[in-house]
Amino acid sequence: MSRLFMFEKPLGMRDTLPGLYETKHKVRHVIGDVMKKWGYQFIETPALEYYETVGAASAILENQLFKLLDQQGHTLVLRPDMTSPIARVAASKMLKEITPLRLAYSANVYRAQQREGGRPAEFEQIGVECIGDHTISADGEGIALLISSLEESGLKNFQISVGHIGFVKEFFADILGTEDRVNALTTFLYEKNYVGYREHVKQLPLSSIDKQRLLDFLSLRGGEEVIEAANALLENGKGRNALDNLKQLWETLADYGQVGDRVKFDLSLVSHMSYYTGILFEVYADQVGFPIASGGRYDHLLSKFGKDTGATGFAIRLDRLIEALGTIEAREPVECILFSAERRKEAYELAFEKRSSGIKVVLQDINGVENLDASTELYEEVTMLVGKAGKESSL
Amino acid sequence: MSRLFMFEKPLGMRDTLPGLYETKHKVRHVIGDVMKKWGYQFIETPALEYYETVGAASAILENQLFKLLDQQGHTLVLRPDMTSPIARVAASKMLKEITPLRLAYSANVYRAQQREGGRPAEFEQIGVECIGDHTISADGEGIALLISSLEESGLKNFQISVGHIGFVKEFFADILGTEDRVNALTTFLYEKNYVGYREHVKQLPLSSIDKQRLLDFLSLRGGEEVIEAANALLENGKGRNALDNLKQLWETLADYGQVGDRVKFDLSLVSHMSYYTGILFEVYADQVGFPIASGGRYDHLLSKFGKDTGATGFAIRLDRLIEALGTIEAREPVECILFSAERRKEAYELAFEKRSSGIKVVLQDINGVENLDASTELYEEVTMLVGKAGKESSL
Repeated sequence: MSRLFMFEKPLGMRDTLPGLYETKHKVRHVIGDVMKKWGYQFIETPALEYYETVGAASAILENQLFKLLDQQGHTLVLRPDMTSPIARVAASKMLKEITPLRLAYSANVYRAQQREGGRPAEFEQIGVECIGDHTISADGEGIALLISSLEESGLKNFQISVGHIGFVKEFFADILGTEDRVNALTTFLYEKNYVGYREHVKQLPLSSIDKQRLLDFLSLRGGEEVIEAANALLENGKGRNALDNLKQLWETLADYGQVGDRVKFDLSLVSHMSYYTGILFEVYADQVGFPIASGGRYDHLLSKFGKDTGATGFAIRLDRLIEALGTIEAREPVECILFSAERRKEAYELAFEKRSSGIKVVLQDINGVENLDASTELYEEVTMLVGKAGKESSL
Repeated sequence: MSRLFMFEKPLGMRDTLPGLYETKHKVRHVIGDVMKKWGYQFIETPALEYYETVGAASAILENQLFKLLDQQGHTLVLRPDMTSPIARVAASKMLKEITPLRLAYSANVYRAQQREGGRPAEFEQIGVECIGDHTISADGEGIALLISSLEESGLKNFQISVGHIGFVKEFFADILGTEDRVNALTTFLYEKNYVGYREHVKQLPLSSIDKQRLLDFLSLRGGEEVIEAANALLENGKGRNALDNLKQLWETLADYGQVGDRVKFDLSLVSHMSYYTGILFEVYADQVGFPIASGGRYDHLLSKFGKDTGATGFAIRLDRLIEALGTIEAREPVECILFSAERRKEAYELAFEKRSSGIKVVLQDINGVENLDASTELYEEVTMLVGKAGKESSL
């Protein structure tokens, strides 16, 4: 353990300076407005939750959790995602008789990082959860709202891949039999290691027909035609329900006018979020190496909080979306009024007037400035009210 | 250590439901706009900082810090205030040649609580820091901006008490001699335990004149006249500089038009924030038992991060301000379109149209609703697009 330099921040922790701050503020605001127009209500949950309840319900890897002990001896975690806390709130406070419930959030989440220069350990997610609605309409609404949110934020080139974890599991179970084998093969998909997947399949003790089915599975990507191709790979009907769901989803999205270039099926899509149970999706944008948004259906999470009801939702990674948008807000123009004590009152009155008409104005006592040139360069306009009255000058 | 009920939250942690969420959002927005009009730039810092750097620089009591160990063996803290992190950022990234620097933030801070039902362990502060300006004008700007922020938020009845920690320390040191004695007496002031203060003074081994000076000190509250009364208590000029500062501050605030009913001197005001070095202040509002805002000058904090420059700032407690405002936003009207599959497309188009004209609309598949009456009661208007086309009806 080395001694720390005074400016150091913990691994993965970052400062957000004014330009990026205003960009985040603007994008968050635009997306929040879309979510509210679709009838979602924003809530906030605490940064710290009990490990035993929300921590255990979350799907984030144990070694990514920031844990601490409270003074009563309980283990706390910094929330690693928002889905589990929202499930807790919904189950405990809001889900009385009234379902479905549409909730939204914009919040920082925390995931410990192992290496310097790696991913951020604190980042903002903006998302929604539609709780208590088992219909495919709810899944379709999630995807349509996600597209609308991203479009309103100004994002032009992005694509949504849609899969179904239930299909993957049933199809694999039908061929592979044991859960261990299913998990081993699924891990290759999660890592998007398709070479490894193929090698692994070749070595499995299966008939050549079943091996071919597992290899053909990887090609289940594209538009509506994928459903038929997937149906052709099935035996005993295992996985047919999932495919019916996806067909309904496609029709729903078509009614939104949202199929075509934006949405593609990718039936090999799986997620590290182990709570997903049905349709799931990921958004990729040009030039950003990681998904900028993801989501799906999770029908068992609420039951961990005593409510046996399904839910579906998504989260947008604000940092990655801003990277994809590729622009940072320029500082809005600010004027400066430099004054000395003799003309202080005049300066205050001028500032009041300008601010009332919407202009951003820094009021600066000239005695507080060491380097006049450097300090005044920051401003759109500088008014000097220094010395005796009647000598106003603009730089 | 008892087993946790599944809905429990850590001590002092709270959920923010939609009404309060929107109220916080609105107040934060209004105040943020004022701060930006005064030329302050918003930044964000990480929730976790090193204990050794920012943790040690903060003025929050050790037992109020949430601490954890990172995987490198360093102790981290959840930021207990924003002043120290902002000092770190300013010193490391922003304070090159250019001072003064005006920064703003709205962020949650974290202070561990010992008892159930006590104070919140996570709460939001909105504040500013003006760094690198040693003038009384900067102190005056802080107070004037604080008043303007609170007024714009809609707060009517509040009062700002202004003191000077330098005055207290010099005046006490002149009479009491040792730092221990000064600290003992100051603690009574911090606890606002004036009975205890008087008892303590009576037992001190001092001349009756000095005892009387210490008792008279408690009466130094009111308007401009307090400066003269305080001057009359001095010997050897110890404390005169501080009083000169306060006189200048009064004149500055008079030029802002802000003396009178809102601002009062209270020279017995001290703070638990040990980094304050000069003028300091607290805001109280009717019917709220704790200060809703506080601030002051801290001229040594930046030097802990290698920059020998002064600063002044304030923080508003958003939760207490909202308590003082006394109103929670009502949910904005939301309409609902209930549809069945046959008329899904029609429902989507109607929702699109309404949302485009600014109306908030929930689109709900009727198959996803268990209790139709309870669910539709939430909405301003419900449009049914169910069954065959041509049978639209409004509830």
